[in-house]
Amino acid sequence: MASKPEIGFCGLGAMGFGMATHLVTQGYTVTGFDVWAPSLDKFKAAGGIPSTSLSESAKDKQFYICMVATAQQATSAIFSDDGILKGLPKGATLVLCSTVPSAYAKTVERDLKFVGREDVFFIDAPVSGGAIRAADGTLSIMAGASPAAIEKGKWLLEELSAPEKLFIVEGGIGAGSNMKMVHQVLAAIQILSLSEAFGFAAALGLNGKDAREAVIASEGWSWMFENRSVRTLAEDYFPGASAVTIILKDTGIITQTSRQHLFPTHLVNTAEQVYLQALTRDYGSNDDAGLVRLWTSTPVSSIDASSLSASDKESKLALVISLLKAIHLVAAVESISFAKHVGLPLQQLYILAKDAAGGSKMFEKYAPELIALLEGGSGEGEPVKLASFTEELSKAVDKAQEVKCPLYLGGTTLSLLLAAKGAEDGAGLKELLSVYVGR
Amino acid sequence: MASKPEIGFCGLGAMGFGMATHLVTQGYTVTGFDVWAPSLDKFKAAGGIPSTSLSESAKDKQFYICMVATAQQATSAIFSDDGILKGLPKGATLVLCSTVPSAYAKTVERDLKFVGREDVFFIDAPVSGGAIRAADGTLSIMAGASPAAIEKGKWLLEELSAPEKLFIVEGGIGAGSNMKMVHQVLAAIQILSLSEAFGFAAALGLNGKDAREAVIASEGWSWMFENRSVRTLAEDYFPGASAVTIILKDTGIITQTSRQHLFPTHLVNTAEQVYLQALTRDYGSNDDAGLVRLWTSTPVSSIDASSLSASDKESKLALVISLLKAIHLVAAVESISFAKHVGLPLQQLYILAKDAAGGSKMFEKYAPELIALLEGGSGEGEPVKLASFTEELSKAVDKAQEVKCPLYLGGTTLSLLLAAKGAEDGAGLKELLSVYVGR
Repeated sequence: MASKPEIGFCGLGAMGFGMATHLVTQGYTVTGFDVWAPSLDKFKAAGGIPSTSLSESAKDKQFYICMVATAQQATSAIFSDDGILKGLPKGATLVLCSTVPSAYAKTVERDLKFVGREDVFFIDAPVSGGAIRAADGTLSIMAGASPAAIEKGKWLLEELSAPEKLFIVEGGIGAGSNMKMVHQVLAAIQILSLSEAFGFAAALGLNGKDAREAVIASEGWSWMFENRSVRTLAEDYFPGASAVTIILKDTGIITQTSRQHLFPTHLVNTAEQVYLQALTRDYGSNDDAGLVRLWTSTPVSSIDASSLSASDKESKLALVISLLKAIHLVAAVESISFAKHVGLPLQQLYILAKDAAGGSKMFEKYAPELIALLEGGSGEGEPVKLASFTEELSKAVDKAQEVKCPLYLGGTTLSLLLAAKGAEDGAGLKELLSVYVGR
Repeated sequence: MASKPEIGFCGLGAMGFGMATHLVTQGYTVTGFDVWAPSLDKFKAAGGIPSTSLSESAKDKQFYICMVATAQQATSAIFSDDGILKGLPKGATLVLCSTVPSAYAKTVERDLKFVGREDVFFIDAPVSGGAIRAADGTLSIMAGASPAAIEKGKWLLEELSAPEKLFIVEGGIGAGSNMKMVHQVLAAIQILSLSEAFGFAAALGLNGKDAREAVIASEGWSWMFENRSVRTLAEDYFPGASAVTIILKDTGIITQTSRQHLFPTHLVNTAEQVYLQALTRDYGSNDDAGLVRLWTSTPVSSIDASSLSASDKESKLALVISLLKAIHLVAAVESISFAKHVGLPLQQLYILAKDAAGGSKMFEKYAPELIALLEGGSGEGEPVKLASFTEELSKAVDKAQEVKCPLYLGGTTLSLLLAAKGAEDGAGLKELLSVYVGR
């Protein structure tokens, strides 16, 4: 481009502030709006132009980014009397980066027409990656829109994302939000599975540090486990990097959308009930790595495991790993089959999720086969023996019952494996998929 | 019988004491053993003969009843060096009334042979009905054994049970325990569903008394709801009539057996995790009617609902009822399909459970159709419209999400209905059964 265009921005929270100031450091003139005055002061200090009016922040801006927290806030920001549309010039590009239901993004598209602003190039582009990557301009972005809107706004999405982390999702408005949603299926399950694993380890008398080391080196690995467990061991929950209410907002989008699509998201549903349980314990604003407190009030890094023999310790760690492996396998099935159900390109989900916050060893290993099966192929690679997953998880659940440890995800996972007749010889991913998509 | 035979008895807990003293009042000479001395004193005061030795309590007794708490205790009582078998004369009848896994009852049968006591007529006869009915001799009894053992011991089972409440279950040793187990599938789900319903009602701002009245008059009724809700409203949890640890023992039998049979018991699994959660909150020894405290610390009978309009109240109560109806429908499917899987006579389960602690309006209404479907018939009566259950439960789950109320059973139930494609036109019980037994 000849000269750098001016950009309007609203929502200067942890993520939005990073994104907006990154654009400033890249030499853009960015006018930022937020309802919280201190954020505006901070933004000014970082070189941005603060604005106390949404319409003013959008005035003469050919590009505008909306990064508010919720769909309700987005509606108010865009459509209110003194909102973004009031200031936004004809033919401008409006990028909604908030995580919202796909159906909501479609509503915005419809309402833009309804209020006579079909001139606006609207892009549905939720992001992932956390505040640090937001500030570095290395986010993952999942964007859906008309080809014309993508053409207009792609350079801006590129400024905010890492190379190879910008995913233009086919399917128009809503496809970006759907892609984020099916990624969050993995995230929502794996945020809880790590606390469940630490809770189980504690009930078995294992020290959290040993559990972390063993899981990270195993097929039970997930990105969330490696990331969150640092805070779990340090009891760094206050306020922490990612509050329980944030993942709860995402599970709300997932389970609401799954109800609308009449598709069962068994494990996310289970996780959501436990997240709601955490609210009743007043853990909502704490970091989600602190959910282990639903299992034990003892700091997991302080558990004395010195009386365990080496072989006893090893067999107990194996149970914890078996638990995670089985949960993450079914999480992959839940995410990918839901993606298929809402019409997303599965190969793109695979590329996106395997290196993102939803990644796990199980996803990376089995997603290709799952995708092949869902796309009508016969599958490829070594057949998965569900029987071994079922048998190993069954041992873990047996043991948990003995030591009186609730395994919310583990129990649901075993029920699903059994429903898939997963213990039978020859049962594989096809049988497991059938629990979600029918036979 | 010419003269009343002497009876030996061990396990003078709440149930056992009632049973043993009932036999005393019927004119039998009963020698009772317990490890807890005060129980022996009480038994003596009630006209029994106390014994501090198991072998002594069994000496010369042609009939012996074992009513200890667990399988481990039973093994010790029967087989230890100074145990029941040491005293029990040749050809005696030994009745095990404890609730144990079916596989355990079969182990006892095998071990009796192994130790050379195939002369003993062994009966597997778990009971149900609570301490009051135990003392009245009006228990429900589910008995399995060889025809010869049943012939020997039937009179004694009749003394302890109400007319028409003695169920001789075909299938030999283990069949009685299996029948008790599938009945407890209903009990275990419905004990939790009442607390979940009260928790949901509280989150909706309803008073517990209104909720109770509405549910009892509705299709959401269950025996457990009517029975336990008296204590829920009165906060009568300490120690209460039935501790959480008691139902947790039963869920342990159910889920262990279901794992061995590779059969999914989705809702019992969900309930079990919540019962284990209750242990972490130190509610284990409290009455299970106090599980509502997992949802709210406010006494549910003290909630001020006066600001709700009549129509608002009615629509909120309807949500609570929808929740219970759907859970109890799937509970019926889970119990009956598990019964089929372990080879029990389904019609007998129906007769037994509909008027027992596992009873519910949904079970009574839909069990006949479910049984017909499982027995290869085409079903009978009005077709069930799963779509209406799915739609109504979906509304309740939506609302629960809005008010941040965990619905463990409700969420799992909805996932199962969706997995059965229960929202589709024409979906019925056959489709719902398929989630458990395959298509």
